[in-house]
Amino acid sequence: MDAMMMDYPLTLKVITDRIQRLFADVEIVTRRPDRSLRRGTWGEAMKRAHQLAEALQRAGLNKGDRVATFCWNHQQHLEAYYGAPLSGGVVHTLNLRLHADDVAYIANHAKDRFVIVDDVLWPLFDKFRARVPFEKIIVVSHTGKPVPEGTIDYEEFLATATGDFTPPAFAESDALGMCYTSGTTGQPKGVVYSHRSTVLHSFSLGIEGPGVKLGDTILAVVPMFHANAWGLPMGCGMFGAKLVLPGPFLDPPSVLDLMEKERVTMAAGVPTIWLGIVETLDKDPAKYKLRPGTRMLVGGSAAPESLIRAMDRHGLTLIHAWGMTETSPLGSVAYVDPSMDDWTPDQKYALRAKQGRPAPMVEIRAVDDAGREVPWDGKTFGELHVRGAWIASGYYNAPETAAGGAAPRWARDGWFMTGDVVTIDRGGMIEITDRSKDVIKSGGEWISSVALENALMGHPAVKEAAVIAVAHPKWAERPLACVVVKEGQQVTPAELDAFLSTKFAKFWLPEAYDFIEAVPRTSVGKFQKTALRARYRDYAWPAK
Amino acid sequence: MDAMMMDYPLTLKVITDRIQRLFADVEIVTRRPDRSLRRGTWGEAMKRAHQLAEALQRAGLNKGDRVATFCWNHQQHLEAYYGAPLSGGVVHTLNLRLHADDVAYIANHAKDRFVIVDDVLWPLFDKFRARVPFEKIIVVSHTGKPVPEGTIDYEEFLATATGDFTPPAFAESDALGMCYTSGTTGQPKGVVYSHRSTVLHSFSLGIEGPGVKLGDTILAVVPMFHANAWGLPMGCGMFGAKLVLPGPFLDPPSVLDLMEKERVTMAAGVPTIWLGIVETLDKDPAKYKLRPGTRMLVGGSAAPESLIRAMDRHGLTLIHAWGMTETSPLGSVAYVDPSMDDWTPDQKYALRAKQGRPAPMVEIRAVDDAGREVPWDGKTFGELHVRGAWIASGYYNAPETAAGGAAPRWARDGWFMTGDVVTIDRGGMIEITDRSKDVIKSGGEWISSVALENALMGHPAVKEAAVIAVAHPKWAERPLACVVVKEGQQVTPAELDAFLSTKFAKFWLPEAYDFIEAVPRTSVGKFQKTALRARYRDYAWPAK
Repeated sequence: MDAMMMDYPLTLKVITDRIQRLFADVEIVTRRPDRSLRRGTWGEAMKRAHQLAEALQRAGLNKGDRVATFCWNHQQHLEAYYGAPLSGGVVHTLNLRLHADDVAYIANHAKDRFVIVDDVLWPLFDKFRARVPFEKIIVVSHTGKPVPEGTIDYEEFLATATGDFTPPAFAESDALGMCYTSGTTGQPKGVVYSHRSTVLHSFSLGIEGPGVKLGDTILAVVPMFHANAWGLPMGCGMFGAKLVLPGPFLDPPSVLDLMEKERVTMAAGVPTIWLGIVETLDKDPAKYKLRPGTRMLVGGSAAPESLIRAMDRHGLTLIHAWGMTETSPLGSVAYVDPSMDDWTPDQKYALRAKQGRPAPMVEIRAVDDAGREVPWDGKTFGELHVRGAWIASGYYNAPETAAGGAAPRWARDGWFMTGDVVTIDRGGMIEITDRSKDVIKSGGEWISSVALENALMGHPAVKEAAVIAVAHPKWAERPLACVVVKEGQQVTPAELDAFLSTKFAKFWLPEAYDFIEAVPRTSVGKFQKTALRARYRDYAWPAK
Repeated sequence: MDAMMMDYPLTLKVITDRIQRLFADVEIVTRRPDRSLRRGTWGEAMKRAHQLAEALQRAGLNKGDRVATFCWNHQQHLEAYYGAPLSGGVVHTLNLRLHADDVAYIANHAKDRFVIVDDVLWPLFDKFRARVPFEKIIVVSHTGKPVPEGTIDYEEFLATATGDFTPPAFAESDALGMCYTSGTTGQPKGVVYSHRSTVLHSFSLGIEGPGVKLGDTILAVVPMFHANAWGLPMGCGMFGAKLVLPGPFLDPPSVLDLMEKERVTMAAGVPTIWLGIVETLDKDPAKYKLRPGTRMLVGGSAAPESLIRAMDRHGLTLIHAWGMTETSPLGSVAYVDPSMDDWTPDQKYALRAKQGRPAPMVEIRAVDDAGREVPWDGKTFGELHVRGAWIASGYYNAPETAAGGAAPRWARDGWFMTGDVVTIDRGGMIEITDRSKDVIKSGGEWISSVALENALMGHPAVKEAAVIAVAHPKWAERPLACVVVKEGQQVTPAELDAFLSTKFAKFWLPEAYDFIEAVPRTSVGKFQKTALRARYRDYAWPAK
């Protein structure tokens, strides 16, 4: 028996029609490179996105062709997010923090035909553009200066549209977007999102946790080239949230200024950004009048409990989510729910420092080295596998990563193998112990670098801490803690040992501490442990 | 270019697998007919639903066959919700408040093969069972007494399952459930939900407004035979909410007792139920210790603003939603959002008394008698049309209701014509003015019976009010207000006129008032205006 429900394809039109009908007056605010604010609306952005779509078609873009972006977070970038797919094409966000060699590799691998680039990023773009056969280079002029020779001004490009344009019909399985993972091993790998996965994932941003809703004002500090700003460009459209885009200014005073001036209700960014925000607020707590209870959505790396507590002290509510480029990205989210009314504050903080439970339509399991699923007991480690409605089924043109390939990232039964080592408790709560390559194997036992780091960052004198495995003659590997001390503070290894020993078994304590100036970072702001491991490859353990 | 995302069909397994993995320990509490509480879990319910599914297959149920239920809200009914579709069949909830003739018509029209019925409802069931060729009658024995001759005990039926059962593969478009509208004109009409629509609709219950989430404790006062309890049986499963089912006891003290004892965080019911709750609380505000901020989800009829204010006085937050059996039912929901921080309380109440904005994946328009779309200006009336991912595309075996049929309910371009007369404002906010058949056409102008009723119910002496159109020699129709006065209170027509005249144009004021004992109700608790209109068909207007 067939049901009798409407045929309602899950394609981008679900979101764009909704924006045009309901949210045309909702604002989009962008910080321009000259620090001034551009005030637009979703209605304006949709109109211009349709102009862009028509212009792209007129310029020869065919269905499925890739349109790359090399931009900061701003309204024109948002227009490209919608405009490229509305033309039938695929929007491909290039990560401007990668090395030019990598960006060139990625753009060539994705076969990007057109590219949209910020004038203020031209020097970076110029480093690799000769190596990629872009057919058209469309430049967003923020400075008002003429665009470089051989390129097209974005506004002039839009002006080629007549307005007589209807987006083509889409299939749910049509490609809509592409994003490459910044992968610390091997070449970057491309994920290809569908219309359907994008609509469903956007919908998921409205549930408890992120809880995007009408009337929200959402600041996307997370770059639009980092896992597509976690889906916020589409999710905010679906729910009609005001969007605030910080342009190139991600320093704490600029972010805090936007939060105050625009009355932001939720901001999204990686922990390192929020660590800087807290440091700035700690110095002068009364300086910024932030909206009480502002949600600070964090992902990309595990957020230390101390960060969650620090946010609370400033009236901000950190919401801890987990996801990856391959998971669109919402995989899981942690929140205190009404069944925890009688929990102690410490219990609640411990919960909020975990990665949370899987979103609906996302399934999880943890698997040991022998490929067996481990029990959900909150203590047995395994690699996290996921499957679901917005999880990648493969990387673009990378057969070696398929099940059975040379470097498989999918299990033979189709689950995606995340590379995160986790425990899962009886209720499905995920706690990330480590990236599988970062876990420390000491005398046959596993030690979590993440747990040690986050505990260390709870010490009042510690600004940042990264813990890595270093080869050890007796124990195979031992943890080395690389610690950044806060300005004007000091702390000794013995004090840190004493601090940690209240929380961990003795063999977990770092074998040594090294006090450094800063932890190296990846292009998306995560600790770059590969760099640290290289630095300490020939490290000689101090005598004990 | 095809995307590379997992193929993840939206079928009931998305929800059942999730419940089994994540929410097995979450409680389901049922008030039994003897008033005692049965405490079960989602894990138990899923185990038993799979047993039921296997037993149904063993008993000869084939794919798409209908399994009717004739039950109060309780765990076994929930098991049938899941078990019938898990067997490959279709769960069809029969409305036990309908006349026996109507239930017989519906069960025959739907071709129900099996039926699951409460022993305590046997007397009602017995009135029509001979007229329906049910092949198997499965009786849930709440009293512990043997089931009637020729029927099967529900527990014995479950015991025929071996446990060696895997649900069949489902297509997204497969039928999952059926529900007939109680339609006040013509024969009842059947809506057939799909696996896909059910999963998407369940997901929608997690967004702002209903906001179903893990840790919620949700009391479904709305009967499971009324638009499938608004989707809560599946939605609570998807999000892992504790479910509280009141059995046959829907009187205010029983409902309040459950709310207090089970620490309910959200209760769902029609306005008439909540009017009774408020009356009980008003008499003794300190009697029940309810959870502050408990969400009271209301739908089925427009909620008067006075009810929203009264709820607030008792620390309860009324959430106003709109939907129909044909819309699964979530169509729209009203809530105060962060952009309204500087609104006055009166503005906020006025907003909350409207029907809200459409949920994502639901589109709206309002159309005049000539079939033209009316502007979204918040004042032009039109019939509300909807389309979307969980909206019916037709009624089961009722070709006359299709576009171009004798009694069409779908427009030629596929939109569902709701029969509700509304205004829509620029932001998409819906305000229901009337059912199209209830609107009063006085001297060429439209008068909203709903607006008058809800205003009258804001008068301190008025318990209930229903306003109907009665033929008038000069004005074609004029409003007659049928008013129920609160116990121990009194009020005159002149006082009511004075009260209303602060809000409405003079020609809107009722032509006359009639003070009655009670407003007749439909099977799902709505005002039964057809009965009132019949009663006043030959009404003689008093001389003025």
